[in-house]
Amino acid sequence: MKSHDDLFQSMSIEALRARYRAGSLTPAQLVEAVAARTSGDDPHRAWIRPLSRNEMIRYVDALEGRDIDTLPLYGVPFAIKDNIDLAGIPTTAACPAYAYTPEASAPVVARLIAAGAIPIGKTNLDQFATGLSGQRSPHGACRNALDPRYASGGSSSGSAVSVALGLAAFSLGTDTAGSGRVPAAFHGLLGLKPTKGVLSTLGVVPACKSLDCVSIFARSADDAQCVFDAARGVAPSDPYAREFQPPTGAAQLGAQPSLRGVRFGVPRANQLEFFGDTSYAHAFDAALTRLRAAGAELVEIDFEPFLATARLLYEGPWVAERLAAIREFADTQPDALHPVIREIIGGAARWSAADAFAAFDRLAFLRMQAAHVWQRIDAIVTPTSATTATVDELEADPIRVNSRFGYYTNFVNLLDLAALAVPAGVCTVGRHAGLPFGVTFVARAHEDRVLLDLARAWLDETTAASRSAYDATAVRLGESHGRH
Amino acid sequence: MKSHDDLFQSMSIEALRARYRAGSLTPAQLVEAVAARTSGDDPHRAWIRPLSRNEMIRYVDALEGRDIDTLPLYGVPFAIKDNIDLAGIPTTAACPAYAYTPEASAPVVARLIAAGAIPIGKTNLDQFATGLSGQRSPHGACRNALDPRYASGGSSSGSAVSVALGLAAFSLGTDTAGSGRVPAAFHGLLGLKPTKGVLSTLGVVPACKSLDCVSIFARSADDAQCVFDAARGVAPSDPYAREFQPPTGAAQLGAQPSLRGVRFGVPRANQLEFFGDTSYAHAFDAALTRLRAAGAELVEIDFEPFLATARLLYEGPWVAERLAAIREFADTQPDALHPVIREIIGGAARWSAADAFAAFDRLAFLRMQAAHVWQRIDAIVTPTSATTATVDELEADPIRVNSRFGYYTNFVNLLDLAALAVPAGVCTVGRHAGLPFGVTFVARAHEDRVLLDLARAWLDETTAASRSAYDATAVRLGESHGRH
Repeated sequence: MKSHDDLFQSMSIEALRARYRAGSLTPAQLVEAVAARTSGDDPHRAWIRPLSRNEMIRYVDALEGRDIDTLPLYGVPFAIKDNIDLAGIPTTAACPAYAYTPEASAPVVARLIAAGAIPIGKTNLDQFATGLSGQRSPHGACRNALDPRYASGGSSSGSAVSVALGLAAFSLGTDTAGSGRVPAAFHGLLGLKPTKGVLSTLGVVPACKSLDCVSIFARSADDAQCVFDAARGVAPSDPYAREFQPPTGAAQLGAQPSLRGVRFGVPRANQLEFFGDTSYAHAFDAALTRLRAAGAELVEIDFEPFLATARLLYEGPWVAERLAAIREFADTQPDALHPVIREIIGGAARWSAADAFAAFDRLAFLRMQAAHVWQRIDAIVTPTSATTATVDELEADPIRVNSRFGYYTNFVNLLDLAALAVPAGVCTVGRHAGLPFGVTFVARAHEDRVLLDLARAWLDETTAASRSAYDATAVRLGESHGRH
Repeated sequence: MKSHDDLFQSMSIEALRARYRAGSLTPAQLVEAVAARTSGDDPHRAWIRPLSRNEMIRYVDALEGRDIDTLPLYGVPFAIKDNIDLAGIPTTAACPAYAYTPEASAPVVARLIAAGAIPIGKTNLDQFATGLSGQRSPHGACRNALDPRYASGGSSSGSAVSVALGLAAFSLGTDTAGSGRVPAAFHGLLGLKPTKGVLSTLGVVPACKSLDCVSIFARSADDAQCVFDAARGVAPSDPYAREFQPPTGAAQLGAQPSLRGVRFGVPRANQLEFFGDTSYAHAFDAALTRLRAAGAELVEIDFEPFLATARLLYEGPWVAERLAAIREFADTQPDALHPVIREIIGGAARWSAADAFAAFDRLAFLRMQAAHVWQRIDAIVTPTSATTATVDELEADPIRVNSRFGYYTNFVNLLDLAALAVPAGVCTVGRHAGLPFGVTFVARAHEDRVLLDLARAWLDETTAASRSAYDATAVRLGESHGRH
């Protein structure tokens, strides 16, 4: 297996396909190598249930005699957040008492498998996908793959860690309020929160059913796009499914995407919030400078409608949608819930239906205000998270510190937008120096490919910076493996 | 004025314009004639606040020197449900303690006035537009213009009566659960419940804000279309506004609309409900026979997703949206509410936010089921109301009898559909023989013009039947004027 170790340093779909085509690697060998790494210690608490070699090999067997050219994800290993069904493996949502074993995979998983991908395990998460920290799991606080003193971010914590560690080429998370973006930022990954409904949420344990999205973690825009294209498709029995309707004409970038002339909305300086964190404040400044240098037009926008929407989600009645999704379970087995989750879900009882309708009315107003802002811009750029935190800091103050991570993410699904978290180098000053920093590009619904094109252009422009981030990653990865 | 009396027998936009063009009538003369009729007794309890001659004359003055050819509603008198703002006249929603006097007219009213129309008064309604009977008003039970023993239908009761009596050429109502369709059916009128959001609900006292529509009562499809076209337009400050996006291509009927080949979905026989009423059951059968004879294709559909949606509105948490809209008022002045309204709105308190979210999830499922039905049909045809009732019957059992009127109307707005109530002759058998019967055509959002084309074709096909309905109307109108 030794000969394949370098694979895990720079796992990508194209690199894997090149090896398969060259005959220097087979899916069976890959599965052996993955199993060797996932069956042992799990210092990051990335896994709830890694698949055994024998469990993986049946997906390899299904590739027998198939043509790699017809299967865009032939032999590509991927991890699955443990609130998404994989046939025959328990789905737990990080709540063992809630577990059930689905007969069928979620449609989005089934599509990836049909495209040749190989599931390698179910990953750790904030219980019931409620959190942005990755610390609310009975399986232990999920630790950052780049520096285990730090939080992984959540709720799709293990899915981000599995890709950051190079075990999976991509992974599936879910993203209701930022769960697919925050952990991407904390690991220097891309995190695509697609347009609501274009990836089916059938077979996903609901958080807020009207807002939930399946998200994609990847190391490049090409990989994210390849997965997005393979995962998409309307399941006829999915009430929340929407046909993907990408824009034609002006909004579509060319074959050679560029940032030149793209109008990025940027929150006014006094609407930016870093909670005193100079590392992230400085890194965001640097990112804006690079965007401007690449020819993007930075348009100052009034961010208040977006912030007010974020507060509506975080402080408003949508927590009752989480309760509605697991009501019977929460009523009959309250002690089975993680204490922080119990506290949050318990708060839902104070909201009446009239409160909910009043909040929807408020949201309609904020949507209209946001629509006025969108008339002037192509996309919005913000930090992905306002700051980061260590595991210890989160344990000391689990709700308040967690909430800081959602400052720039909470509004996206309520406003029916698409978002892509992208790496933006590493922090160079302050106490988080050396850790990755990420920005999020936000666009209108159905502009997912526009976002991927912007990310491609952005990562091309910042190759040098990205390189140094990956180098830093490698260094810290070594450290963290040593430390645990 | 005597010379203009015949005008009120067959008020239509085209007839008025012909007289104005011929010089046989002026808007000032019209206003005198209208005021003479609305300033006296109001045996039907149609009006909360008819405008005086002096109040109307300022709208006439504004027409001075204007070209009739540029004003599609030049000198056309219309009535306004008293939950829609008319500048300078109190808006009460049939709750005197709630009254306020708006400085500006609702945008939809302002647009009609800008097109030349003349407001003649504010009409009676079920308080806060909560009801389908017209009997829940402190101003008295609104009585049917064709037979005052019978209910007018509601909640847009006075608006229907004013058109049925020939005082207004058209009128505005609102329609959340059927309030613009049921009174149309009870008076042999057309009642257009447009696509949600294409007529602005700014300046309208909310019932269920997310569902409310401004509706149009008219005596012909041409008049309804003329009003619909003049009233439409997105107000930039309206959170619920939607651009009207009529379909192009196949769904659009030709210049000579026909029923031939149109696929009408019809509920299965065991899903039709008439509450023992043979008059309506027989009349609906006759309407289907006439549709079939006109070349329409009748497609039996499973109506259960629509009925389940109707139950969700009537028995579910949406009543809390009504509470949310008037919460402060209802909390501080509960005694100002009509007893039936107080009982209904009071029931809202039992619904939690989690109940509301569970209902939205159920609705998403029903929408998907309904969408599957729509793949096979162009429109749905149902009775507009399942039955009718006398004022006495409603007073004896105000909630249960009222609910029967909504059996075929409650689902429409929750499923984001457009609907048009159209006359379908008179009942020929049973205890309601001689009263009008109406059917409703239902189509997808933005297919309002398709509905108007279908109605035009339907009314052309059934001219003979319509004639006899109008004759019967005239007879009863004489009776009712005699009786009160």
